[in-house]
Amino acid sequence: MLDVTQTPLKALLKRRRPGYCLEAPFYTSPEIFAADMETIFQRHWIFVAVEADVPEPGDSTVVDIGGTSVVIVRDDDMNVVAFHNVCRHRGARLVHDYKTSVGNLVCRYHAWTYGLDGQLLYAEHMGDHFDTACHGLKKVHIRSLEGLLFLCLADEPPADFDVMADLMTPYLAPHDLRNTKVAFEMDIIEPGNWKLTMENNRECYHCAGNHPELTVPLFAEGFGFAPEQLDEAGRQQAERYACLVNDNHGAWEASGFPSRCLEHLDDMVTGFRTERLPLDGDAESHTLDTKAACRKLLGRFNDPKSGALHFWTQPNSWHHFMADHAVTFAVFPIDAEHSLLRTKWLVHKDAVEGVDYDVENLKAVWVATNDQDSTLVGYCQTGARSPAYEPGPYSPHTEMLVDKFCNWYVGRMTDAHGA
Amino acid sequence: MLDVTQTPLKALLKRRRPGYCLEAPFYTSPEIFAADMETIFQRHWIFVAVEADVPEPGDSTVVDIGGTSVVIVRDDDMNVVAFHNVCRHRGARLVHDYKTSVGNLVCRYHAWTYGLDGQLLYAEHMGDHFDTACHGLKKVHIRSLEGLLFLCLADEPPADFDVMADLMTPYLAPHDLRNTKVAFEMDIIEPGNWKLTMENNRECYHCAGNHPELTVPLFAEGFGFAPEQLDEAGRQQAERYACLVNDNHGAWEASGFPSRCLEHLDDMVTGFRTERLPLDGDAESHTLDTKAACRKLLGRFNDPKSGALHFWTQPNSWHHFMADHAVTFAVFPIDAEHSLLRTKWLVHKDAVEGVDYDVENLKAVWVATNDQDSTLVGYCQTGARSPAYEPGPYSPHTEMLVDKFCNWYVGRMTDAHGA
Amino acid sequence: MLDVTQTPLKALLKRRRPGYCLEAPFYTSPEIFAADMETIFQRHWIFVAVEADVPEPGDSTVVDIGGTSVVIVRDDDMNVVAFHNVCRHRGARLVHDYKTSVGNLVCRYHAWTYGLDGQLLYAEHMGDHFDTACHGLKKVHIRSLEGLLFLCLADEPPADFDVMADLMTPYLAPHDLRNTKVAFEMDIIEPGNWKLTMENNRECYHCAGNHPELTVPLFAEGFGFAPEQLDEAGRQQAERYACLVNDNHGAWEASGFPSRCLEHLDDMVTGFRTERLPLDGDAESHTLDTKAACRKLLGRFNDPKSGALHFWTQPNSWHHFMADHAVTFAVFPIDAEHSLLRTKWLVHKDAVEGVDYDVENLKAVWVATNDQDSTLVGYCQTGARSPAYEPGPYSPHTEMLVDKFCNWYVGRMTDAHGA
Repeated sequence: MLDVTQTPLKALLKRRRPGYCLEAPFYTSPEIFAADMETIFQRHWIFVAVEADVPEPGDSTVVDIGGTSVVIVRDDDMNVVAFHNVCRHRGARLVHDYKTSVGNLVCRYHAWTYGLDGQLLYAEHMGDHFDTACHGLKKVHIRSLEGLLFLCLADEPPADFDVMADLMTPYLAPHDLRNTKVAFEMDIIEPGNWKLTMENNRECYHCAGNHPELTVPLFAEGFGFAPEQLDEAGRQQAERYACLVNDNHGAWEASGFPSRCLEHLDDMVTGFRTERLPLDGDAESHTLDTKAACRKLLGRFNDPKSGALHFWTQPNSWHHFMADHAVTFAVFPIDAEHSLLRTKWLVHKDAVEGVDYDVENLKAVWVATNDQDSTLVGYCQTGARSPAYEPGPYSPHTEMLVDKFCNWYVGRMTDAHGA
Repeated sequence: MLDVTQTPLKALLKRRRPGYCLEAPFYTSPEIFAADMETIFQRHWIFVAVEADVPEPGDSTVVDIGGTSVVIVRDDDMNVVAFHNVCRHRGARLVHDYKTSVGNLVCRYHAWTYGLDGQLLYAEHMGDHFDTACHGLKKVHIRSLEGLLFLCLADEPPADFDVMADLMTPYLAPHDLRNTKVAFEMDIIEPGNWKLTMENNRECYHCAGNHPELTVPLFAEGFGFAPEQLDEAGRQQAERYACLVNDNHGAWEASGFPSRCLEHLDDMVTGFRTERLPLDGDAESHTLDTKAACRKLLGRFNDPKSGALHFWTQPNSWHHFMADHAVTFAVFPIDAEHSLLRTKWLVHKDAVEGVDYDVENLKAVWVATNDQDSTLVGYCQTGARSPAYEPGPYSPHTEMLVDKFCNWYVGRMTDAHGA
Repeated sequence: MLDVTQTPLKALLKRRRPGYCLEAPFYTSPEIFAADMETIFQRHWIFVAVEADVPEPGDSTVVDIGGTSVVIVRDDDMNVVAFHNVCRHRGARLVHDYKTSVGNLVCRYHAWTYGLDGQLLYAEHMGDHFDTACHGLKKVHIRSLEGLLFLCLADEPPADFDVMADLMTPYLAPHDLRNTKVAFEMDIIEPGNWKLTMENNRECYHCAGNHPELTVPLFAEGFGFAPEQLDEAGRQQAERYACLVNDNHGAWEASGFPSRCLEHLDDMVTGFRTERLPLDGDAESHTLDTKAACRKLLGRFNDPKSGALHFWTQPNSWHHFMADHAVTFAVFPIDAEHSLLRTKWLVHKDAVEGVDYDVENLKAVWVATNDQDSTLVGYCQTGARSPAYEPGPYSPHTEMLVDKFCNWYVGRMTDAHGA
């Protein structure tokens, strides 16, 4: 109705300035949000769940990526499979519970009945000319990376998932996630665009001032720093930290725990980064008292003090794996200004609540940290709404991974929307 | 901002495949919703109320069709008239109560005062040059079909209302709706597009699995079936049912109660269908115990066991008339994904609550059934949001009327929007 | 998606009929709302606060004009300054409390620290190449008109603020607003477009029927009337009122209180109107008992019965100044159909609550009146949603200022959007 000159997405992508934040429409525009959902979330590998969500045959869990609902099921052969959660008759949503256990998948509307392989087994009243074989559930690509479940909604998923899988498997295998259980999980709605949630995750410049619980077992030097601004004492600390990391990497790798940094955040379609890092002092885990939260250790670990393996993926997840427990985070965009953050705490499947671990203790650090991060994300979202907002510079010493997230995003969008 | 290729309405209408559901944008697109409101709800006869809503001179009721608010009034000559509910001065809404009783129609803002004929009687401070004759309320076309009130917001309403009225009057007259009262009414917001609410109404394929209260007095055979899939016992039952319906029609018509099916669902602009059908066993009415809910019978009925006359209209209503009471349903679209369903239970105007009828008993079946249907409509709406949604086939034996609803809709839209 | 022919803004502006309400899209269209925010609220002087909101150095208050958040601060030299409330690093909102007191302006995200002059004082980890001088807060134009604070978000604000200031200063000075305090303030969300809130303020045609509390100390004749429709008694009353106003103006001006009407509502970019008017009978103030609400009088007043100075500004404020207290009103648009109305009651800064004034008594009239007005604005908003809405005529005797508000609005919009 009104002839407002708006910058097209293509131009916004083209003029993005490396080392700087994105322009405001990337955080506020419903049109760019729709493009994000179509280009990023419908065509890339999205971390959505863990195998521990569906431990037994017939166990199912529903995940929603935008309007696309997917039901993940463990079939009778213990394979994890995924289908579009839409009946092929009148299009009704098929499975309504977040987690449940089923024999077949039966639509509640007219009782169309599908097997765990997605085949339509039964549909009443459809007459002789109706072919059940043409009306099975639509399959969704799903991959398990050592128990971490990734979906891809595209017909042809990015092929380099295999590259990531090959590189990551040795890092993840010692934690044996397939033999864990979900001890606790929590969804929160952050009041910001999904990219702000991701950017917030990709730096710890903000940690010292905002995350008192999280930072206890962390080395301040690990967050990055401007070397030219250190005094003599600071320089010595930074050197000691670098040596410590290097020594730990050596010792861990000798014990069969791959640890050194792998970084492909903006040079792969399926971008990721990993590194095992030491914790400060006597710290064993991400808990308020820095001690292991679970007495029964994961997989091949027998020393609770084994540092923390970190795994970041584009576009929507991060994970921390300690010797005693793991925490996984998945971001699901809701609209241009809201995102769902789903956090799961995993312990050994045979660990007993109240005996081996206490849920309150297990979850305390990240419940607090998520809440703090959600507030910060909201600050950025309200800031981006202002016509006075202008992309600022990233710290070259503490915000490199944020920059790489933006590089990846701009690259993937440019690939789809224009040169 | 973004160059997303979207299918135009005209193309969507053109490629609609008969016998199949509509494509997703018909249920989710705000633009198509706006087109529905303009093309379907602003230009066709819409069932909105009953004469029993405004029994006495000065009684008024307000109905909102999208943003268009209409006040229906019974004037001093007992005529039912309708006006746009907007003051001609500053455009304030004029009548705010759903039902009230008025002498004149007085705007609360500056006290402009209109008679029950819509003429502006009084406006202060407007000076000598102001002509009250030019500032009367705008009239809305209204028709009463034996007490059922239909509005048309167009300047020139579809002429075939008279055809429907001529055909339907003998069916409705025995129930004498003008001498009923509204014993109970209820609004619910269904979480779905108005067409999903209508489609759900147009088949009983879903009844067996979802409506335990409704199906007690109904013959399962009446919902339709695939004859080739019946076994011998089923075939015999279906034949017995067909004979029963035919016998009842003959007996009822001989007694002056027209009963045989009239169907003009997709071959008239003012589409409709009617039929009087028997109830199973000793059933008299749509109640939990299948007995008449009201001791005082309607109109010319003296046998409570007289079956149920059904009346369906395009685009937004259905009705069930028993010997003892009637239930009317009107659908008012709210937005692309929400619809208001207004249900009214009518009994003889002289029936006494607590003596002749009990409201809880009267309303029980349809309160439960509406709630179940609302859930099902929501399942379809969430399903339609998925990019994986694909129109499925209608059962040729149980979903013919859903198909005809879609035929009518696509025909009316095509008539307005495309070649 | 759908080819709906909509009237462009330019055409709507061009065909606006003087003496009549605006067409419906001006009240309902999100696109025109966006144009209003850009053209009216981003480029004109907007009344937002009073100096009494930030009495001491370091005191700050945040005001939001659409998505634009501004922090107003009193600096150490007692100047009132204003900055965009957005950090120059990652764009986070900087100040979150409506009112607070600060030493520096510190972003909670990464602790970037700005002085009260907006200069970036400190940013960690940014390296040697980072220039703090280029990353100060962006300034916003702010002017105090005798303690009333106006912002302009444009780079080059309308120059005629000075004309208004020169004309208004003598009227306002006697009330000495710089030595007041905010005794009470209240925000309400009105369910209507900001222009309906403004139009409602610009006439008292609706007062007799809707504002029993407000009208007690007001002369009915002051609301305007059609002279040709008065009877002999009415004519005499009107003449007496005109003489009373004239006599009062003379007496007040002789005592140093400018009083006569100044009106530049539609012939200046920074449109305004003022007049000091007598109150009826023994009335001293806008209170339920018409007596002064505060024993300690404002500024140069020593007679509580000194009438009421009114000050209306385009596009978003009005004010009533009595001898004992003042009330200021600012309208902040929220979306096309909602507006925030912020009301502040000011008394002498040395007045003591419970001794010199009672807050309940002070605020009673306008709390009630605002609530009544909000309801009326809602009536107009729902009316404007109807396709049957048609702009009606303004009373030439009581709605001239509404017409001038529309003239000003249409003029300013035409200046920006079309010929």
